[in-house]
Amino acid sequence: MKAIALAAAALAAWTGAALAQEKPVTTAEIIAASAPSEWRPLDLSHTLVMTFGEGRTAVIELAPAFAPKTTANILALARAGYFDGLAIVRVQDNYVTQWGDPEEGDRARSLGAAAATLAPEWSRPRDRAIPFAPLPDRDGWALETGHSGGFPAARDRRDMWLTHCYGMVGVARGEAPDSGNGSGLYVVIGHSPRQLDRNITLAGRVVSGMEHLASLPRGTGALGFYERAEQRTPISSVRVAADLPDGGPAGRLELLRTDSASFAALTEARRNRRDAWYKRPAGHIDVCNVLLPARPRP
Amino acid sequence: MKAIALAAAALAAWTGAALAQEKPVTTAEIIAASAPSEWRPLDLSHTLVMTFGEGRTAVIELAPAFAPKTTANILALARAGYFDGLAIVRVQDNYVTQWGDPEEGDRARSLGAAAATLAPEWSRPRDRAIPFAPLPDRDGWALETGHSGGFPAARDRRDMWLTHCYGMVGVARGEAPDSGNGSGLYVVIGHSPRQLDRNITLAGRVVSGMEHLASLPRGTGALGFYERAEQRTPISSVRVAADLPDGGPAGRLELLRTDSASFAALTEARRNRRDAWYKRPAGHIDVCNVLLPARPRP
Repeated sequence: MKAIALAAAALAAWTGAALAQEKPVTTAEIIAASAPSEWRPLDLSHTLVMTFGEGRTAVIELAPAFAPKTTANILALARAGYFDGLAIVRVQDNYVTQWGDPEEGDRARSLGAAAATLAPEWSRPRDRAIPFAPLPDRDGWALETGHSGGFPAARDRRDMWLTHCYGMVGVARGEAPDSGNGSGLYVVIGHSPRQLDRNITLAGRVVSGMEHLASLPRGTGALGFYERAEQRTPISSVRVAADLPDGGPAGRLELLRTDSASFAALTEARRNRRDAWYKRPAGHIDVCNVLLPARPRP
Repeated sequence: MKAIALAAAALAAWTGAALAQEKPVTTAEIIAASAPSEWRPLDLSHTLVMTFGEGRTAVIELAPAFAPKTTANILALARAGYFDGLAIVRVQDNYVTQWGDPEEGDRARSLGAAAATLAPEWSRPRDRAIPFAPLPDRDGWALETGHSGGFPAARDRRDMWLTHCYGMVGVARGEAPDSGNGSGLYVVIGHSPRQLDRNITLAGRVVSGMEHLASLPRGTGALGFYERAEQRTPISSVRVAADLPDGGPAGRLELLRTDSASFAALTEARRNRRDAWYKRPAGHIDVCNVLLPARPRP
């Protein structure tokens, strides 16, 4: 069966040709050759487990280094049970899936201990205490891009910020910069809308379950909102992983460290594909094309 | 209801504030102010209408200027009824939806008048007869990007080629460069995999129905192939629009010309958003973030 380029096919091609490779070449080979110490567990204290629809689960790693107040607010909302029984209210093709309170306008729902408004956390001053592994590749949106603690990020001479790549989770807001508090969240499901960078607070990334959030029916109302209540996907619960036995599904995952040698090798392998399917390596990678591998813990 | 940035919301905000705007500012305003002559119908002779699933329809405009032999082959396959009764066989999250013959390996199915193999049409020499409206914005993957006859494209000093943006349709192939013939096609459903540019033939773009192709359940087999036949989405038919009465749904659409003043204004409005929601205009646009509007003909 014809399959356009991907690691597994490339791996099959290599091994099928019985070539003994000294050095791992493909994504799959590099991951297979990585050291256990290059992987990290999730910090369960700032990870969410969302269950929705018919038994779907998404694991979301929050980013306190970039959005400390927003992270704390979202954790408080989750612990107050705020999201339980709410719904996915909007899916706009090639843009975002968004969830929260469908009756938000009524302001009837208690926020528990969480704040109702939050100052923007759209970027933060550069700080050497916060890791940043730069990519050498040029970017049209920022002076420099790279990765920070597992998240795609960018920086200029003064500030650093998370970037709107596929799977990144942000905080819906109205026109006022402080009108987002984490009670409404969205995840990017299309080509990265980098124009949102530094216009809205990014608070984390979906590390597992993205395929369920991206494949929901698109809403037919303005901005992709669902027009009828029964079209929404109900959210059963959003829990802090640390509050679940062994972290629930979040406790069973590990992520490749973005400051590891295997991560650098993986990124280079995707910048210049060396498997037989590719005939012209790109010599370039976009920060939103970089693979951020997660896998079950051994 | 909080909604992250989009034209309609921005428009509502402007008009809600009762500001009389002399000049259109938002996407919606620019489209509303465009001249009828800035819109074009589809050329029905190289447009496909695919019906699939439960009454879904996608309209695909082919690109003979970039892939003449592939376009001719796909049209021949469609006219032979090749695709009728086949299926969507693969949906890989953040990558592609692919369709064709699930039993391809059996080679039992006739290609009609179409060729079984085709020389690659991954790029073509620059030609002044082929329009190219360049973007001034820098791109990491190519010397220059822009639009050509409604398609996102790139060029260097010698060649020009279509780019793998969301919604672009390409020709699945095996490892051999000539192994794609249009009998298996894919559409980009995630962050643009520009590393595929000039490695595989792009043959067109989905101009309507993309939301249905992007929201299918992801396959759980290798590369996102479905593991069981019943998971596939059946294709009822693929027809050349010119063979349908009045072009079918393709005859009822019009597209904003990519060489029009309103298209340039729209792109600038998205490069530097001037509506009240955005606080920091990006000053940049990626070729795959540019909007290519289609709407019902008046």
